[in-house]
Amino acid sequence: MTSLADKGCVPTHNLFQGSWTQVSCPCCMSDRVEPLVVIRLSDKVQPVTKSWLISLIEASKRHGGAALLAHPGEDECGDVIVVSAPRCTLLKATEDLGLCKKYCNGDMVAFSYQDRSNFSNVDNMQEFLTLAQRQYIVKNELDSLQSQKKQKIPGVTEAIGTWENICQKLTKAGVIKDIFPLHDQEKLNDLGKKWYSEKQIWGQPLDAIQSYFGDTVAFYFSFLDFYTWALVPPALLGLALTFLVPGGGESSGTVMKKQVEEGVMGDDDDDGPSVSGHMVQAVFSMLWSTLFMEFWKRRSSALSERWGTLQLSESFAEPRPGFHGTLGINPVTGRLEPLFPEWKSQLRVGLVSVPVVGLFMGLVVLGMTGFYYGEALAQSFHQDSASWFSRVLLYLPSIIHIVYTNMLGNMHSTVALQLTEWENHREESSFQNHHTTKVLLFTFFNNFAVLFHIAFYKQDLPLLRKRLASLLILAQLLNQFTEVVVPFLVDRFITAPQKELLEDDLEEETLRSQRSLPSFPGLFSEYIELLVQFGYLSLFSCVYPLTAVLLLLNNITEIRGDAYKICKLFRKPFSPPVSNIGVWQTAFEVLGFVSVMSNCWLLLLSPRVQEFCLEGRISSKNILLFAILVEHVLILFKMVLAFMIPDEPDWVRIKREQMEFQSMQALGQRKL
Amino acid sequence: MTSLADKGCVPTHNLFQGSWTQVSCPCCMSDRVEPLVVIRLSDKVQPVTKSWLISLIEASKRHGGAALLAHPGEDECGDVIVVSAPRCTLLKATEDLGLCKKYCNGDMVAFSYQDRSNFSNVDNMQEFLTLAQRQYIVKNELDSLQSQKKQKIPGVTEAIGTWENICQKLTKAGVIKDIFPLHDQEKLNDLGKKWYSEKQIWGQPLDAIQSYFGDTVAFYFSFLDFYTWALVPPALLGLALTFLVPGGGESSGTVMKKQVEEGVMGDDDDDGPSVSGHMVQAVFSMLWSTLFMEFWKRRSSALSERWGTLQLSESFAEPRPGFHGTLGINPVTGRLEPLFPEWKSQLRVGLVSVPVVGLFMGLVVLGMTGFYYGEALAQSFHQDSASWFSRVLLYLPSIIHIVYTNMLGNMHSTVALQLTEWENHREESSFQNHHTTKVLLFTFFNNFAVLFHIAFYKQDLPLLRKRLASLLILAQLLNQFTEVVVPFLVDRFITAPQKELLEDDLEEETLRSQRSLPSFPGLFSEYIELLVQFGYLSLFSCVYPLTAVLLLLNNITEIRGDAYKICKLFRKPFSPPVSNIGVWQTAFEVLGFVSVMSNCWLLLLSPRVQEFCLEGRISSKNILLFAILVEHVLILFKMVLAFMIPDEPDWVRIKREQMEFQSMQALGQRKL
Repeated sequence: MTSLADKGCVPTHNLFQGSWTQVSCPCCMSDRVEPLVVIRLSDKVQPVTKSWLISLIEASKRHGGAALLAHPGEDECGDVIVVSAPRCTLLKATEDLGLCKKYCNGDMVAFSYQDRSNFSNVDNMQEFLTLAQRQYIVKNELDSLQSQKKQKIPGVTEAIGTWENICQKLTKAGVIKDIFPLHDQEKLNDLGKKWYSEKQIWGQPLDAIQSYFGDTVAFYFSFLDFYTWALVPPALLGLALTFLVPGGGESSGTVMKKQVEEGVMGDDDDDGPSVSGHMVQAVFSMLWSTLFMEFWKRRSSALSERWGTLQLSESFAEPRPGFHGTLGINPVTGRLEPLFPEWKSQLRVGLVSVPVVGLFMGLVVLGMTGFYYGEALAQSFHQDSASWFSRVLLYLPSIIHIVYTNMLGNMHSTVALQLTEWENHREESSFQNHHTTKVLLFTFFNNFAVLFHIAFYKQDLPLLRKRLASLLILAQLLNQFTEVVVPFLVDRFITAPQKELLEDDLEEETLRSQRSLPSFPGLFSEYIELLVQFGYLSLFSCVYPLTAVLLLLNNITEIRGDAYKICKLFRKPFSPPVSNIGVWQTAFEVLGFVSVMSNCWLLLLSPRVQEFCLEGRISSKNILLFAILVEHVLILFKMVLAFMIPDEPDWVRIKREQMEFQSMQALGQRKL
Repeated sequence: MTSLADKGCVPTHNLFQGSWTQVSCPCCMSDRVEPLVVIRLSDKVQPVTKSWLISLIEASKRHGGAALLAHPGEDECGDVIVVSAPRCTLLKATEDLGLCKKYCNGDMVAFSYQDRSNFSNVDNMQEFLTLAQRQYIVKNELDSLQSQKKQKIPGVTEAIGTWENICQKLTKAGVIKDIFPLHDQEKLNDLGKKWYSEKQIWGQPLDAIQSYFGDTVAFYFSFLDFYTWALVPPALLGLALTFLVPGGGESSGTVMKKQVEEGVMGDDDDDGPSVSGHMVQAVFSMLWSTLFMEFWKRRSSALSERWGTLQLSESFAEPRPGFHGTLGINPVTGRLEPLFPEWKSQLRVGLVSVPVVGLFMGLVVLGMTGFYYGEALAQSFHQDSASWFSRVLLYLPSIIHIVYTNMLGNMHSTVALQLTEWENHREESSFQNHHTTKVLLFTFFNNFAVLFHIAFYKQDLPLLRKRLASLLILAQLLNQFTEVVVPFLVDRFITAPQKELLEDDLEEETLRSQRSLPSFPGLFSEYIELLVQFGYLSLFSCVYPLTAVLLLLNNITEIRGDAYKICKLFRKPFSPPVSNIGVWQTAFEVLGFVSVMSNCWLLLLSPRVQEFCLEGRISSKNILLFAILVEHVLILFKMVLAFMIPDEPDWVRIKREQMEFQSMQALGQRKL
């Protein structure tokens, strides 16, 4: 790798000041240009291509440029371009994104470039925008670079067509390797102290996280925080049920024995709580999940108001880079841009994506069925022949199933990305939501298929309890280990020693070490982990009341682990402004409703209810009808409850309505 | 009654011109003042009170008046005040209501008084606003008259407090009898010709209805129209299933006989369709109801855009007259008005109204249970003694039940109104929706309790079929008769002869005849009729496939009947601008989901499925589980379908987004 150091391009901040783009706009003049984003080029890139790209980055928007500031590293052959943004570009982008900023009257108001003098801190970009916002704006401007005419890129064989996206083209052509935001080591250390040092046990510095890492990351940690606190009541209930209420073994013993005799259950003892404990736990967890989500929505909208993302105007901004269509005038904004009717996207989702995802989920079920069938076959073959060959054969179904599941998972993630690209969503958030939904459905299904099989098909509660406990304890230990301990060790013992060789030049080392870090894998795996947890808790917790306690313990370490990870072990991610956790909110809510069905079913299977039926006190058909009735009533109740609790606190609603009223009035006062 | 004619106050339009309020504003000068609304006073009202009221109506808003035009009839002792509105008041109210009007570029844009010169027809109020809108504005201005200080009303014993509503106070004090809008006989005749004459069979003049009767009425007739057309596919299917598919009697005969032997069913033949017919009908009606509602939403938003009610700003306007609270500054609009926190209203709904309505529904069930119990008791008593006393006693349960149901209904409607008043909703639409919901739930429950009892408790399909047929045919004939024929006969033979005596003075006769008409009872009973129809169709139609055919026939006459009724038999109603049919839409949607449950259940009861169980081919528990699965899947499918179909056509969405974009831009360009 041709590093900066090899070529002597020492990227200290002081050095950076020399070769930055000269700005002509008086308001953008500044003593010190802050390096925000690094474009990493391929080693083999020709100087002529690099300088073409730099000129494009520097050019004004009128000339098809990004109106940013560029620094070529030390010389023309270096493999990085460091990018920053002048004040005017930042302010205009703030308006385009629809970010709210502090107005002179103290309110958060959607920023307007024309009215900029009335906003606070408008002369100091470091105060006015957070670091994450400045970096996202630079990325956004780079992403929206489009070729205004068909032209040849110097030093690259392929030509670029009219309105083609330049960064995408250069990435495809191998010129650009990646684009990433720079860490600010000083701020990062400050943040780390407040976040995961020994002294800091309660709470997280959410505002500082939002300012440094941006909204998506801050919303994740806020949600994790909120969720962890919300686990306290079910954890207390679980502890009380387990240790204070006497176990219900005596009354369900007879049924247990009968079931054991019938071979339905394994030979383990029933050490779970009684049916009344079951019921308390089930009803509590059904209502708890609704309350949790409703109060999270309120918290989320309060955070969004605080962070100025309540008025995001993504649908009025330019479409996301991957969006394509016939060039035309956007009927809403009047801008020239690619157009693609939304109903076509919708149709593609409905007629192609939904069936394809359904097919994959069917394949998961097929795989599981095949596995159980194969296992039974191997078992009977082994019992018949009992040779070493048959003994080896016993492992075959498992191996085939693991290989099959892995292949399916890989295929699905490729297909999901391509399908979502093909659906052609105009907005980045819509793209993300559709992509997340696909992967999420599959991952979730994959995680829970076995548990559902045990609960609904085998109807074996003790096995379910055993599985749940092992999943909760083992899987989480494993997860913490791979997520935190391994990267930490790698960082400490493999990466760190290399760093020390260059410790003499701190600032070069900063950029260098960031280049060598792996890029942040995104928050998907973090969220899915929480969702799966939440699934264990809400779907099956009535068979294992300690679930919430284990999850609570896990999450307290998870917060610090995730914090350490994102600060130390990965490159800084870009983080678009968002106003909520997006599709994850829906996923948690849907799970809340599914939990009603699963809990009603599990209660139906609980030993004492079964005993009732066996003793003939109530027919199994009637108890089923009763369970259905209860299920419907509970779902109705959850819906009414969700409807009754307003999704935003009163003060946020008033602020929002004020904004609406003002824009209505402003519309009335316009002169055409 | 002291009529106008007795006092010689002949209210011809020409005469009216003389004594109208003199306007000082140059733009409001007009050759001819259009009489819009009549305030009918009590016979005993003193001239001093009347002239005080007139001066209040005429006074400018600054002086606490309504800024309207008033005409005292002929002399000061007359019992009417005729009210009209000057141009300025109409225009300002148009802005306050948030009505959209045609802009110079042809779009429908929220009207702005400041920007008025850019709107079409702004100089001609007859063109600019519809008659219904002008009349509603007058009523709205009258309704919002508030006393600015504690004062004595001349000629009335009681004093009026600060910020008390004047019209409410005067109505309570018996000064104002009622306020109603005037018919325009010429326009009404034109409308009638287009609407219910012999030539006009297909379609309705919806725009003319909206212009003359206003949005609420127009939306009702649009919905009725849409619903009638939507009935064509299920009607065709019903005809096909009844006459083309051979009846399934042969296969279900054996079960029938068994059930007859067990005394579960009556002794009638099973002439219904086969189980496959059942299934086709059930699945079809479940999907049809979703499609129907989704496409109605699209139609509704298109109508709303066309009629300029897409941007109604009720929440920014003044609160409804009945709203009370502590006086304070509205944080959103900055106006002084009574304030009452929304969460308190919500809490009152949740903690008091919901349980009370639930209690009433419980009382309905209790009444029904009591009736069945009493009937059984009377029957057994009659069988034992067989005297004339016991024969009379046989009728007692029915009589008690009818009296009980009626009392309950009356009590409920009083309680519902008072509860909704007490909930203290700020907006009229919110008040209406909450009131409607309460009455609707009770009425619906009352209507369907018996059918549900037969379907779910007695599980007697043939009886259900018989009941449904008799309800559909008899109840509708009865309904048409009382709704249309009786008022028509009354109008023709009792009211009309009186009219002819005065035929020599056409204009006096107009006002006179309108005063003598009963006031319009509102659209509630019309909507509930449609909802109950829709309930028969979606909940139970699979047992009686001809439902849709009968409903289609009924609705075709219903359209003309309702049209004739509203034009001829009642006083003209006020009609606030609305953008949809409000809570009725939700009611129809909810019914669509309930229909899934009821249809799944009815299919489970169908003879062939029962036969399957009896023959032991499948256990009754498993078929129940299967039905639950089908139900959940169908509900999910309906939800996905409803989500997939956009609620507004693309062109409406674009218009709406344009408006949003423009107001965002306008907000950015404001100068403070």
